Amino acid sequence: MKKVINLKNKLNLFSDYWSPRVIAEMNDYQFKLVKIKGDFIPHKHDNTDEVFIVLEGVLKIEFNDKIIEINSGEMIVVPKNEIHKPYSDKECKIMLIEPKNIVNTGDAGGSLTALNNQWI
Amino acid sequence: MKKVINLKNKLNLFSDYWSPRVIAEMNDYQFKLVKIKGDFIPHKHDNTDEVFIVLEGVLKIEFNDKIIEINSGEMIVVPKNEIHKPYSDKECKIMLIEPKNIVNTGDAGGSLTALNNQWI
Repeated sequence: MKKVINLKNKLNLFSDYWSPRVIAEMNDYQFKLVKIKGDFIPHKHDNTDEVFIVLEGVLKIEFNDKIIEINSGEMIVVPKNEIHKPYSDKECKIMLIEPKNIVNTGDAGGSLTALNNQWI
Repeated sequence: MKKVINLKNKLNLFSDYWSPRVIAEMNDYQFKLVKIKGDFIPHKHDNTDEVFIVLEGVLKIEFNDKIIEINSGEMIVVPKNEIHKPYSDKECKIMLIEPKNIVNTGDAGGSLTALNNQWI
């Protein structure tokens, strides 16, 4: 606790896609960094909203009713219980904020399900 | 909900110091932008951690045991129940993440106490 966390330095510590790394904890919430490229699986989280802050690149999220594009320096709150499919044509670097122990693939599961609590 | 929030655009909407503006809500938490300059009052929050992400400038936080400097692109988790005094020599732009309805001056109160739920 009480240490400075440099986002760029943390991003340099890993290179795999769709595998969130935890950088901080606030109460029961975690701050995670993730690099993405290509398509994720459509899924939803029944009990929680989820925040995406784009640090570099362009994140697209396909919802049932529209596709939203989030650029570097922008954020979005994905409401709980809404099916969403994150994707990105090129590498995109994101900070996620969500409760501890959320499964990244939500209700969908599958091979893109990542381990939780991978601290860097 | 489900709208893109551009941090720089939101920062351009206000200019007063020490007066957090809410830009997003995730479950029972709020994301706030605040501009600071000069000294804040030493205070603590008994029941919650608090996250500061520095978007521009340099934030300093004086704790009982040390002073920590947080630069642009860096963040810190201030642990609950720890007295901290944020300050900055020059204007500094920050994103705060904390539970709804937290009083900015914590246990200290005083003239720097800001209104909550000032959305922009």
